[in-house]
Amino acid sequence: MSSAEKQASEDLHQQMQLLGHAARDAADKLARVDARTKTSALMFAADAMRDSVSTILEANAADMERATKRKLSSALLDRLALDEGRVAAMVQGVESISGLPDPVGSVVDEWVRPNGLRIQRVRVPLGVIGIIYESRPNVTSDAGALCLKSGNAVILRGGSEATRSNAAIHSCLVQGLSAAGLPETAVQRVPTQDREAVGILLRDMSEFVDVIVPRGGKSLISRVQKDARVPVMGHLEGICHTYVHASANLEMARDVVVNAKMRRTGICGATETLLVDRAVSDSHLVPLISDLLEAGCEVRGDEITKKVDARVKHAEDADWGMEYLEAIIAVRVVEGLDEAMAHIRRYGSGHTEAILAEDNAAADRFLNELDSAILLHNASTQYADGGEFGMGAEIGIATGRIHARGPVGAEQLTSYKYVVRGSGQTRPR
Amino acid sequence: MSSAEKQASEDLHQQMQLLGHAARDAADKLARVDARTKTSALMFAADAMRDSVSTILEANAADMERATKRKLSSALLDRLALDEGRVAAMVQGVESISGLPDPVGSVVDEWVRPNGLRIQRVRVPLGVIGIIYESRPNVTSDAGALCLKSGNAVILRGGSEATRSNAAIHSCLVQGLSAAGLPETAVQRVPTQDREAVGILLRDMSEFVDVIVPRGGKSLISRVQKDARVPVMGHLEGICHTYVHASANLEMARDVVVNAKMRRTGICGATETLLVDRAVSDSHLVPLISDLLEAGCEVRGDEITKKVDARVKHAEDADWGMEYLEAIIAVRVVEGLDEAMAHIRRYGSGHTEAILAEDNAAADRFLNELDSAILLHNASTQYADGGEFGMGAEIGIATGRIHARGPVGAEQLTSYKYVVRGSGQTRPR
Repeated sequence: MSSAEKQASEDLHQQMQLLGHAARDAADKLARVDARTKTSALMFAADAMRDSVSTILEANAADMERATKRKLSSALLDRLALDEGRVAAMVQGVESISGLPDPVGSVVDEWVRPNGLRIQRVRVPLGVIGIIYESRPNVTSDAGALCLKSGNAVILRGGSEATRSNAAIHSCLVQGLSAAGLPETAVQRVPTQDREAVGILLRDMSEFVDVIVPRGGKSLISRVQKDARVPVMGHLEGICHTYVHASANLEMARDVVVNAKMRRTGICGATETLLVDRAVSDSHLVPLISDLLEAGCEVRGDEITKKVDARVKHAEDADWGMEYLEAIIAVRVVEGLDEAMAHIRRYGSGHTEAILAEDNAAADRFLNELDSAILLHNASTQYADGGEFGMGAEIGIATGRIHARGPVGAEQLTSYKYVVRGSGQTRPR
Repeated sequence: MSSAEKQASEDLHQQMQLLGHAARDAADKLARVDARTKTSALMFAADAMRDSVSTILEANAADMERATKRKLSSALLDRLALDEGRVAAMVQGVESISGLPDPVGSVVDEWVRPNGLRIQRVRVPLGVIGIIYESRPNVTSDAGALCLKSGNAVILRGGSEATRSNAAIHSCLVQGLSAAGLPETAVQRVPTQDREAVGILLRDMSEFVDVIVPRGGKSLISRVQKDARVPVMGHLEGICHTYVHASANLEMARDVVVNAKMRRTGICGATETLLVDRAVSDSHLVPLISDLLEAGCEVRGDEITKKVDARVKHAEDADWGMEYLEAIIAVRVVEGLDEAMAHIRRYGSGHTEAILAEDNAAADRFLNELDSAILLHNASTQYADGGEFGMGAEIGIATGRIHARGPVGAEQLTSYKYVVRGSGQTRPR
């Protein structure tokens, strides 16, 4: 390292420390702010976003142009792209978060002990949350709004491909904070795309950061899990399965399977592997495959599936458990429920799986015995989403087992404390 | 490293991998075991402990003899020592855990979305829990029983000073598992006191271990937080404060303060610092100090406190925020509630604090504005305990903000999954 590089590195460390200090201070204030002030900050932020649609779209167009030149994948471009509809959805996300009940201070549980001690479990913010994410600009507003709603300060570190879009959205959030009289440092962006900043956030700021939420691809997540010295709320891949059981209703299966794969291929709740029961491989497999092909999906199948349609490609071993995030699906015929569950246990990522079945006993076994964050019966895996769960919005779908699992909304961004009221109780020896 | 050392290290790695594999297999089975079988395993284990009191006490006597020779501190000896009463309390702990409602499979929350999707949040075990602890042999039975109750497999790594006691208790738990037809590998001990085994558990077994719970002193905790590559449920020091407000009832304060400090000095819920409001420094300080002195407690005070009694020693700066775990207390006179809270924020560890006050408004401010895991009004800090909270027993008091906070009982050792039932819903674009 040259002395100039050394100096730059020291400067960056100092800059990040200041960021951390400011976040901690903001968190201490936010934890005691009343619900109304947080709500109005969010409403002001939504107004600012609505007034800034053209600014946001211009910034996004610049990001898209650069990303296209750099030949980023179509899945990534799809996640990066904004249009008026997507900005409107972001605004609506912030508004719906503002309308949610305030989680902070709510009494989650309450009981009285035989000795008269009255114990309450009360929600409190987590503190300072670091969010490291890629591509999707809506994470900026969703995560910023959710953290604010839950009384947390947040440090955002988005991907370099979305820098301009993220900056434009972040500026609206800051306007909202400022208009409500809250510290602007409650929602901060790491001011540089220097990759060393991520390392500092993960390793050297445990004093200032209470939890890191990574949201992105495999390499990001594994870097975070390797380097982090603070707790991580993990978001692994979404290798989602849809299993068509022997008792599945064909018309329902046709609707759900195409939706589960093709509605949006770039989201983590998109189905990546279709399992079809051998008992219905004659009746159901042909229409399911032809629906997918006609919707523009590449199908990679096992031997039986390949016989169904000449357009079906050969599925390699690596296709099982692959997160395509594109219009590609792996299809396999299985010998009943147990083989389907064994396949999911072996290749799944513990994110979301669905069974399509009229036989409720089979469905119940699938729901009880599998252990993914989300298990669905007769519904599309694309419902794996905090908004669809009624949480207003989400930061992502946690696949870890600690703290939050499944969609991470405002409530999942809180901790709790115990408040115990007595009348002079002393503990017997 | 010599080639013999290298070979030993490789052997240890392999041994630990086998341990991890066995734990993962046991966890997969345990997750689906019905409540009744787990209960009977715990009852059998309690029976085995009751039948083995003399064996356990002999093993403990050997540990105590060795610890005394090695001149371990009196706090540590207190935590290590067992007698019939303490073994009976351990048995009772296991029995009361067996009688708790089974957390696994319970529906925590349930709602229906406007589109008809019915969403349930259902408790599931965490998986495999690694517990690294020091001295107290009761952690072996408490942690083993709580993990089993919550459907988790556990890998226990106790301190070398308690090896024999832990082995004797562990053997009773294994007898209980075996009698109920459950895999004996559901509760395993790391079979060596080699310190490298801890490193392997923290760094190289993320495939097999879902969460590490460290329980012990500062150096253990900081090693775990530095080295762990799996989530950690942190248990920091218990630097607990009791604040005697201007409105405190003197008789109550005298009872509670002596109990909070002296009932057992070696537990993390023992008060380490007493803050007394200047408004009652004439009326309350003298009797409080003399009670403590007469109970055999060393008092280290600020200037005002030192004037009260010639036996009061000088409190150095380092005394504020010191976890003595012995019969020593730091005493300071503060100018009202705000100064008391500022002192606690600065020197506390976020564990447990108490206010003694008849003024409910002051108490409410203390309970609302401070952010420790446990906040008490008019009660002894020694109530910071899972058993006293009605959880049957605890693994410890978590001071981290992620997942569990405060006493960690069976419920806190679970995660959850979402079960969603539909009728063919597809997600609109």
